[in-house]
Amino acid sequence: MKQYKAYFIDLDGTMYRGNESIPGAAEFVERLRIQSVPFMFLTNNSSSRPEQVAKKLNNLGIAAQHGQVFTSSLATASYLTSLQEKAKVYVIGEEGLYTALEQEGHEITDQGADYVIIGIDRNISYEKLSLACLNVRNGAKLISTNKDAAIPTDRGMLPGNGALTSVVAVSTGVEPIFVGKPEAVAMELALSRIGLEKSEVLMVGDNYETDILAGINAGLETLMVETGVSSFKDIQNMVKQPTYKVKDLYDWLKQ
Amino acid sequence: MKQYKAYFIDLDGTMYRGNESIPGAAEFVERLRIQSVPFMFLTNNSSSRPEQVAKKLNNLGIAAQHGQVFTSSLATASYLTSLQEKAKVYVIGEEGLYTALEQEGHEITDQGADYVIIGIDRNISYEKLSLACLNVRNGAKLISTNKDAAIPTDRGMLPGNGALTSVVAVSTGVEPIFVGKPEAVAMELALSRIGLEKSEVLMVGDNYETDILAGINAGLETLMVETGVSSFKDIQNMVKQPTYKVKDLYDWLKQ
Repeated sequence: MKQYKAYFIDLDGTMYRGNESIPGAAEFVERLRIQSVPFMFLTNNSSSRPEQVAKKLNNLGIAAQHGQVFTSSLATASYLTSLQEKAKVYVIGEEGLYTALEQEGHEITDQGADYVIIGIDRNISYEKLSLACLNVRNGAKLISTNKDAAIPTDRGMLPGNGALTSVVAVSTGVEPIFVGKPEAVAMELALSRIGLEKSEVLMVGDNYETDILAGINAGLETLMVETGVSSFKDIQNMVKQPTYKVKDLYDWLKQ
Repeated sequence: MKQYKAYFIDLDGTMYRGNESIPGAAEFVERLRIQSVPFMFLTNNSSSRPEQVAKKLNNLGIAAQHGQVFTSSLATASYLTSLQEKAKVYVIGEEGLYTALEQEGHEITDQGADYVIIGIDRNISYEKLSLACLNVRNGAKLISTNKDAAIPTDRGMLPGNGALTSVVAVSTGVEPIFVGKPEAVAMELALSRIGLEKSEVLMVGDNYETDILAGINAGLETLMVETGVSSFKDIQNMVKQPTYKVKDLYDWLKQ
C-alpha cells in the first residue's frame, strides 16, 4: 500500500456515531501518532469550536489537539478572509461559526453586510432568515458553511445546513457559495494548512457524497469506511470510486 | 367586452398594498355588488382566517363577507379532505391554517402523521422543521399551501412559504404538492365553490407568476392590473399573455 504523508479524517460516521466511538477509530489515530504521520480532522459540523471537538474526541479515547480540527466554520472564515480582509458579515449560525469569523477579524452586523454567512443554527427564526434575505437583496454575497441536507441524530435525520440555507437561496434567487465537503474550497484550505500536496494526503470518510467526493473533487486519493452513511452497495454503480474501501478502520490497519 | 358571470380577485397588490387600499379597488367591488355579479377573493395568504381578511377589506372600504374569501389554507384543507376524509396531520403554520384544517375535521398530531402541511409561519423553529422532516421520512406526504418565494412587507421582501417549505423538501428529498396560485388545484376548488365553469369566470390579479398563471393554468380568462408586483414590461416577452391588461381598476371600469 502507498504510504501517505498525511491523513484527512472525517468525524461523524468515521470516528464516532453520536456519543460512541467507532471500533478501530482510536487505534487508527494512535497508529498515526506513533508513526508521527500528521493528520487533520475535517468536519462539516460548523456549530462547535475546535477545542470542543478535540475534547469530545479525547473523551472517546481518541488523541486529538484542537489545532488538528478543521471545521467548516474555520474553512468558511478563512475563505472569507481570502475574499475580503475585514468583511462586514450577517451571520446565521452557532458558537463555532461566530467564533471563527471573529477570530479572523470580521465584523458582525445586522444591516449593510458585505456577506451573509450561514451555518447550522438550531435556534433558527423567521427574523434571522428575514435579515439574511434583506441583506442578500441589498447586495450581500451568500456563503454557506456546507450543503448537508440532513444530519444524523438519535431521533433520526434532522434538517442540515444545506436545507436551512435553501430558504435564503429560494427566497432571493441567489445561489450560495458552499465551502465545506464536498467542495474543493475546504480541501484546498486544509491542504494549505497542513502544507502538503494533494497527492501526498489520503482522505478518509464514511459519506460518499461529502467525504469521498470532496477528496475526488480536489484530486486526493480516498479511503471509504462502511461505518457511517454510505454502504458499498450504495456506491457500486458510481462512476467515481474511492481509491480504497474497508469495512472499518481495523480492516485498514491489517492491510 | 365579454360579460363574466363571476370574478376571482386577488388581494395583495390588487385590492391593497400593506394597509392601504389601491385606487379603484373599492369602486370595482362596489360595481360588482350593485350588478349582483358574484365574486370571490383568492389569496395565497394562509396566515389569517377568512373573517380576519374580510374585516381588513371592510376597514379599507371594500365590501366583503368572510364567505367570499378563499385563502390557500381553506383550499389546502379542502384539497386534503378530497384525498382523505379524516387525516392525521402535522402542521407548520399560523392561525388560518390550523383553523381551516380543524374545521374540516382533520386531526393535528406531532407524530405518525399521514400528511405534513406547511404554510407561512413567522414563528418557525428548528424543532418544527425537524418534526416535519421526521414525519415525512416516516412516510407522511408533503403538502404546502403555496410556493411564493417571498412576501412584500414594509421592510422589503421577506421569506415566503415556498422558501420555508424548501427546508423540508431539500432535507428529505420529497417534492411537495403546492395548492395555492398558480396551481390549478386552488382554482378548481374555487370554481367548484362558486358553482361555475372556467369559461364563466375572470381571474383578476397583479402578479403574473401567481394570479395570471393560475388563471391560465386552469383555463380561465385573466385581467392583469399594474398596481402590484408585475409590470407590463416584465411580461412583454411571455408566451402566455393575460386576456386583458389595465393600469388599475379605474381603467377597467371605464371599458
